[in-house]
Amino acid sequence: MKQFIHTIFIACLVLVLAACDQTTGSDPLPSWNESPSKLAITRFVDAVTSEGEPHYVPPAERIAVFDNDGTLWSEQPMYFQLAFALDRVKALASKHPEWKSTQPFKAVLEDDLKTVLAGGEHALLELVMATHAGNTTEEFSRIVKDWLATAKHPKTRRPYTDMVYQPMLELLAYLRSNGFKTYIVSGGGIEFMRPWTEKVYGIPPEQVIGSSIKTEFEMRNGVPVLVRLPEINFIDDKAGKPVGINQHIGRRPIAAFGNSDGDLQMLQWVCAGSVKPLCLFVHHTDANREWAYDRNSDIGRLDKGLDEAKTRGWTVVDMKDDWKSIYPTTNQ
Amino acid sequence: MKQFIHTIFIACLVLVLAACDQTTGSDPLPSWNESPSKLAITRFVDAVTSEGEPHYVPPAERIAVFDNDGTLWSEQPMYFQLAFALDRVKALASKHPEWKSTQPFKAVLEDDLKTVLAGGEHALLELVMATHAGNTTEEFSRIVKDWLATAKHPKTRRPYTDMVYQPMLELLAYLRSNGFKTYIVSGGGIEFMRPWTEKVYGIPPEQVIGSSIKTEFEMRNGVPVLVRLPEINFIDDKAGKPVGINQHIGRRPIAAFGNSDGDLQMLQWVCAGSVKPLCLFVHHTDANREWAYDRNSDIGRLDKGLDEAKTRGWTVVDMKDDWKSIYPTTNQ
Repeated sequence: MKQFIHTIFIACLVLVLAACDQTTGSDPLPSWNESPSKLAITRFVDAVTSEGEPHYVPPAERIAVFDNDGTLWSEQPMYFQLAFALDRVKALASKHPEWKSTQPFKAVLEDDLKTVLAGGEHALLELVMATHAGNTTEEFSRIVKDWLATAKHPKTRRPYTDMVYQPMLELLAYLRSNGFKTYIVSGGGIEFMRPWTEKVYGIPPEQVIGSSIKTEFEMRNGVPVLVRLPEINFIDDKAGKPVGINQHIGRRPIAAFGNSDGDLQMLQWVCAGSVKPLCLFVHHTDANREWAYDRNSDIGRLDKGLDEAKTRGWTVVDMKDDWKSIYPTTNQ
Repeated sequence: MKQFIHTIFIACLVLVLAACDQTTGSDPLPSWNESPSKLAITRFVDAVTSEGEPHYVPPAERIAVFDNDGTLWSEQPMYFQLAFALDRVKALASKHPEWKSTQPFKAVLEDDLKTVLAGGEHALLELVMATHAGNTTEEFSRIVKDWLATAKHPKTRRPYTDMVYQPMLELLAYLRSNGFKTYIVSGGGIEFMRPWTEKVYGIPPEQVIGSSIKTEFEMRNGVPVLVRLPEINFIDDKAGKPVGINQHIGRRPIAAFGNSDGDLQMLQWVCAGSVKPLCLFVHHTDANREWAYDRNSDIGRLDKGLDEAKTRGWTVVDMKDDWKSIYPTTNQ
């Protein structure tokens, strides 16, 4: 009996120590250098999780929203979803002989990215509709997974899902271990992200918000399916981000993370909330380990956001100085 | 020391017993008579939660969707949200002198419900736009809460939020205690439900899906707000329900609960999933304690659904016979 009690006692002790370790143990953000950015994050988390303190927030209201492109993974030399669309044009070309002589498809098939981009938003929309619509939601999910399993980034030759930021993965885990629900709020396609965000970021499909095309319920041989239509449903960018957050979550987050002017309204809305919120921009300053761009970039332009961050005292992460590593493996 | 060990031991014992009680303890559905409906529910839950068994479903995929009007609370003699809209017309009438001579507002102000309803969908849409739009999301939430705090149902004289079904509250709690995420998927307004579903059903705002009007991000004196526009965004009814589920959740639920033909496509879609799902209709058969209606009702018509439930072997709850009580208090 004594032996049994002893075992129980040890078991309880282990549990208590394990619990303690979660809160006071080792550094939860090991890839972050000791910097004002890191301090802003840990101070914020301490403040909203300290019961009885003035800035305490109950767990149900601890909502954190993250942009995806350029905030959780890279976005250069083009949004990864655009690389997917270009590859899909090539994969589908044999079924569309007319593409050989029709822009913007012709340019895609000739690897002439300059002409594709010169077509502007209209050309990109055409590419998205031709490659993202016409199938069922389940078929599209499979296509995305298959592509990610084989496609490689043109510069790093890594799979795209390996080009996520290690410091941000740590941040996501740190927030969740402190009772936060973490959401993605991206201008990218909601159904392009959902097939892989749980595995890569630990973010389940129901916590992914993005741009979307319309879908329609249909009976196919007695089997109900959702068919993806070539028609825009919602653009989750700029002023659309607070709208998308309200539509999906129905309450104001207390932390927002972005990297471009497309995230500005999201940060404005979150940081106008009544609690003491955290608003943070990732600033791409590392031309060696990643890319360096801001005010003049076509992709992920951060211009007004940089000014507003200064005015409002938001946190700006300097990738070069604040992050010990960029991607999850060691051979950088 | 011995005393301390003893205390630890007792504490552990209490924890273990408490854990056991959750799974093998008292009846989790005490307001349900022993019936095929109740058996279908408990067998389903046992099947999807038994690890190693063929129909086991991991907790992350245990998604259950519930219609609201007529499934979680009553919907007679009119949808409660319509009662809200009528009351709002009266509250706002002093600011709209023209309503005294304009239909459908004139009829509302004269308590002439017959004329209001004779105006059909167009009249109802006009009422909704006049009473649900033009304010910010936060103002609207406050208006809904204030209304619910004082409004009384014309027949029962109870607050509307007291007219929720006790057996369904138990079902929601039972599913959640078995690792389910419970969602509302309603034709009603998403922002009409969110202010109170957490308190009444234990369902947080981010798990409420409904019809919506468009909102727009706007800066008002430097403060960002979301303004509600008089324009339909999404109708979450009939074939819209699977679309809304896919948009918000991004994966197929394994259980669906409804009460009308408006829920038919939702049940079809859920029950066509690959796991062993549960599809259930609440059939309003209790004219004494609630209302009795189905194939010929204008509100909550259950016609095709009754036939399809029979063909497909879905569960149909007979309110009169299957439920010991209807509403949460004892004085019925």
